[in-house]
Amino acid sequence: MTTLSCGTLPGNTHAPTGPALPVLSDGVRVPLAAGGEVEYAALDYAASAPALRSVWADVAEFAPLYGSVHRGAGYLSQRATELFERSRETVASFLGCRPDDRVVFTRSTTDSLNLLATALPAGTHVFVFETEHHAALLPWRRHHVTHLPAPRSRAAAVRAAEAALADAPAGAPKLLCVTGASNVTGELWPVRELAAAAHRHGARVVLDAAQLVPHRAVDVSELDVDWVAFSGHKLYAPFGSGVLAGRADWLDTAEPYLAGGGATRVVARGADGRLTAEWSAGEARHEAGSPNVIGAYAIAAACRALSAAGYGALAEHEERLLGVLRDGLAAVPAVRELSLFGQDAPRIAVVSFTVAGRDSAEFARELSERYGIGVRSGLFCAQPLVRRLLGEADADGDCEGPVQAIRASFGAGTPAEHVHRLIRAVRELAG
Amino acid sequence: MTTLSCGTLPGNTHAPTGPALPVLSDGVRVPLAAGGEVEYAALDYAASAPALRSVWADVAEFAPLYGSVHRGAGYLSQRATELFERSRETVASFLGCRPDDRVVFTRSTTDSLNLLATALPAGTHVFVFETEHHAALLPWRRHHVTHLPAPRSRAAAVRAAEAALADAPAGAPKLLCVTGASNVTGELWPVRELAAAAHRHGARVVLDAAQLVPHRAVDVSELDVDWVAFSGHKLYAPFGSGVLAGRADWLDTAEPYLAGGGATRVVARGADGRLTAEWSAGEARHEAGSPNVIGAYAIAAACRALSAAGYGALAEHEERLLGVLRDGLAAVPAVRELSLFGQDAPRIAVVSFTVAGRDSAEFARELSERYGIGVRSGLFCAQPLVRRLLGEADADGDCEGPVQAIRASFGAGTPAEHVHRLIRAVRELAG
Repeated sequence: MTTLSCGTLPGNTHAPTGPALPVLSDGVRVPLAAGGEVEYAALDYAASAPALRSVWADVAEFAPLYGSVHRGAGYLSQRATELFERSRETVASFLGCRPDDRVVFTRSTTDSLNLLATALPAGTHVFVFETEHHAALLPWRRHHVTHLPAPRSRAAAVRAAEAALADAPAGAPKLLCVTGASNVTGELWPVRELAAAAHRHGARVVLDAAQLVPHRAVDVSELDVDWVAFSGHKLYAPFGSGVLAGRADWLDTAEPYLAGGGATRVVARGADGRLTAEWSAGEARHEAGSPNVIGAYAIAAACRALSAAGYGALAEHEERLLGVLRDGLAAVPAVRELSLFGQDAPRIAVVSFTVAGRDSAEFARELSERYGIGVRSGLFCAQPLVRRLLGEADADGDCEGPVQAIRASFGAGTPAEHVHRLIRAVRELAG
Repeated sequence: MTTLSCGTLPGNTHAPTGPALPVLSDGVRVPLAAGGEVEYAALDYAASAPALRSVWADVAEFAPLYGSVHRGAGYLSQRATELFERSRETVASFLGCRPDDRVVFTRSTTDSLNLLATALPAGTHVFVFETEHHAALLPWRRHHVTHLPAPRSRAAAVRAAEAALADAPAGAPKLLCVTGASNVTGELWPVRELAAAAHRHGARVVLDAAQLVPHRAVDVSELDVDWVAFSGHKLYAPFGSGVLAGRADWLDTAEPYLAGGGATRVVARGADGRLTAEWSAGEARHEAGSPNVIGAYAIAAACRALSAAGYGALAEHEERLLGVLRDGLAAVPAVRELSLFGQDAPRIAVVSFTVAGRDSAEFARELSERYGIGVRSGLFCAQPLVRRLLGEADADGDCEGPVQAIRASFGAGTPAEHVHRLIRAVRELAG
């Protein structure tokens, strides 16, 4: 079933119809329900993206040299340790981190935000829009949380955040959690403006960059956010690692995220006879247990590959295809695209839509079975937002209303044919 | 520097001098300080083991077919989801799980035990020997913890646990955390007897099998332990995943380990206008965020490979080399092996030792630079145990006393030559 030969060669970055960067799933063929097979059109990048070929090549080159890190005295251990720490430096540089920032390797964005939630000072007030992904919406549940209602423009988002922060108790630590790009609508949030508003009110800012960083350069210094979280598996490096990077102070004084080896400097019985731990400083404090060296290295490999390709070229590739897709879908009368900020708001290559009279899950299944296209149906782990947008679709006439949406998303590995095939398929299936 | 050709072919399981199973680092050559190079002797398996060649082959075959799991409608998404869930079944079967047991994919043993710590009912009394690895020693810090002193025999361990459990408040939930094999001495703990003692007193048992499962079959039903935790990276599958498997009840009623997508069924505003989450049941409750599918698949691949090779054959291979190593070291007068239960206690292929008059870190470095051997020096994330055993060495004459030990550990991928080289090197360096 697998065809690993790849029609697009590395470096073929500017071909108008090929992918911007080759990915490992290029050329994989899948069966169709009616018989025969077709090249798989992976259009679920917003959930998880295929590995870049260059990331896989780097991992495959490293794998035989894998060694136990930290206190291992052997040559491979020393080398793996060096490579793990150099991966951290690569990520720091990729994100434009400040000199004192921490770059903690986690397992995912979800894990990164949960880690930050455990590191908040007691009494922190957290502000988060209810339009966020559950990973950004829910980790703060042990703190005082204000869920801001869905704003209808980027400017309204800044005004709402500013008003809520102004109302917060003076003196209390405050955190604003913002998303870089919506995983539902693809719309870009005004991160710099929200960060500035937060800082005017003495609040810290964490940026959920899970969807943003595969599509746009993220520079924490330039955006002036305090922390940023993202996942390797959406950044073409699906090897179980994520990142939380940013200000050291709250991280350095927090209880360790996990208790265990690596996070401890000294474990001994104290004067009272009880066993106590003196915890490590720096990133090690929150990275107990043997680190996922291959996962961290894969993220660094992805950072290098995307930087080398240039976000300008990647964005150009995606915007061209995104324009084609949105125009194509708009021409199908039954299709309604979900949007919070309106038709013209800037966005990444994520498009959610419904098809009048059609069940979204069934529609997505038909796209797979009849066209070999992989999209996603559901509420996309952002239930309050999707329900609100579906409810609006409902008010427009479909009296039962769709209970789910369909989402197509793509990125650097997507050739034009996949997008053209989706448009044709939607047109045919929507009747 | 890397030579990927492998002198030992898969299936060469019973060669008396070759490895029991081929690993990816076979044939990797490393430089020596004096010039020239030599095949790397990886003798730090207890920290992290090289990938089995078969595990790597399975991962490499799957990687192009990687797809977003769960709600992805595409063929690769469906297939990846199926493979992820089938990996869970493979692990359940490998561990002899009971029908209702949960198999949660975590990132490591440390993560597994921290997860269990968050799932303990309020008021749980935890009992743990102070001889444990920090990952088993420290996660319980938010509960009432009794640290049992180091026992000097397997029978004494059972008696000590029984006495402590008998003293615990009746009615309080209780947990005994036991290790399968010491990461310092390699000695096997009497898991079945400790579990029986715990159950006699109404306590639950969690087995830290990080060191045990690469060397001996672990069957939770047969051992009658309630949970077991282990890491992929010690089981020849270093791709960032671990496992917590066992009883459903405490896991199913606990707060989710991480808050985020996947762990939520419904997120909506409640009657009071506040946003609330209804959490998933089953493993999903504790696996928020996109799972590390490749990591889980790699663990399943390792389970299959070890089962196919047979633990009998693997243990035979290791015991033969372990006998050679211990006899060889015992013949060097300056070497003192660390042991809690004595010379004849059963053990896995982990040997910690000191060399009279020599700094352990420097000695380990010389093993690497002059012989291409990778061991570990330090306190092995089990500081109370190692300090106690070093203190005893100290009392025997060396008035400054060693502050660290040296640990050599190996497994299925180790050929006899690596062990012979270590013995020769220790003899030469110990002078």
